[in-house]
Amino acid sequence: MKLHTYFRSSAAYRVRIALNLKGIEAELLPVHLLKDGGQQFGTAYDALNPQHLVPLLEDDGLVLPQSLAIIEYLDETHPQLPLLPPDARGRARVRALSQAIACDIHPIDNLRVLKYLSDTLGVTPEQKSAWYRHWVALGLEALERQVAGAGDTGLFCHGDTPTMADCCLVPQLYNARRFDCDLDPYPTLTAIARRCEALPAFIAASPENQADAA
Amino acid sequence: MKLHTYFRSSAAYRVRIALNLKGIEAELLPVHLLKDGGQQFGTAYDALNPQHLVPLLEDDGLVLPQSLAIIEYLDETHPQLPLLPPDARGRARVRALSQAIACDIHPIDNLRVLKYLSDTLGVTPEQKSAWYRHWVALGLEALERQVAGAGDTGLFCHGDTPTMADCCLVPQLYNARRFDCDLDPYPTLTAIARRCEALPAFIAASPENQADAA
Repeated sequence: MKLHTYFRSSAAYRVRIALNLKGIEAELLPVHLLKDGGQQFGTAYDALNPQHLVPLLEDDGLVLPQSLAIIEYLDETHPQLPLLPPDARGRARVRALSQAIACDIHPIDNLRVLKYLSDTLGVTPEQKSAWYRHWVALGLEALERQVAGAGDTGLFCHGDTPTMADCCLVPQLYNARRFDCDLDPYPTLTAIARRCEALPAFIAASPENQADAA
Repeated sequence: MKLHTYFRSSAAYRVRIALNLKGIEAELLPVHLLKDGGQQFGTAYDALNPQHLVPLLEDDGLVLPQSLAIIEYLDETHPQLPLLPPDARGRARVRALSQAIACDIHPIDNLRVLKYLSDTLGVTPEQKSAWYRHWVALGLEALERQVAGAGDTGLFCHGDTPTMADCCLVPQLYNARRFDCDLDPYPTLTAIARRCEALPAFIAASPENQADAA
């Protein structure tokens, strides 16, 4: 199994956590999103993933983009230490929490979007930072309300073991800190993230512990 | 079962298609995203969904946001006429195609993002349209390449019956037409969409056939 990854990619970070939590060995192949005009646009990677995004999983002929699709695939094919709950309602909740990040926060603040804002619309660095923080705050505020005090929330986003939702939460908060977002309004989310970040699977997956870290 | 919906919401349209394809009866509750300063911000809806987005499903105490989470929940709880393939690789492919739209095209072109571009960044209507078309073209170009000629592609995105991927594709192309995007470069996607749009489940779910259509 091979995972095309970039140390700072929030979406690749999610999958690295999932691999580690499940104890799946995978070869990590770095795709540097900034070097060489963006290695994701190179001929070899373009042939594998016309979306030019990371992560991308290769598994015995399967070529699979999209971090959440990858995590669900890993969970289905390696059932040990499940990242989705056993019940339909639980799975629905974990998917919805994951998608709140993977659909409604991260893509709007992704590298290529920030680049378009600067390069094509000519916004100032301050406006770009405000944009980033706006979507993070909007998304995390809602997520905090959904998780805080919910009966299904435990030590982690759903129950007392990490799920796909935690694989999404930690990279999003990591990124938010990089952009100096104020995380004080989200005590439940940050407490969960702290618990995650103490676990070896999360530590080994973090950007600074990647071979391709700058 | 109740679905909070807005006739023009691409994400709500996905779920309306899924409900119809599976023959599930649901009460449709309109949330007008433009009237009254946005009914999604009203007290009642805010209490249900702090994300202030549609769709939202209510089912016997479950309150579930996020269109893809809803579709998977419907598919798991109503197994007839499945919207996901029976094999892990097939499910992974359908999820990845769905997420290519639901994560990497739609959220960047969503109403609230376009509003921020106009109201906060003061971009011109032309710049806003160019933004819209840029992300649609980037996303659909990749999707066309992933679907065209793939062995798993059939009359629909995956095989010869509609799946969750088709529930995502048709609303995205509908929206793209509204914004005058050129769809000629995507002959495989538009041919699939035409097949879908001839089916009663897709016709009944379309924006112009909703009770809340303007």
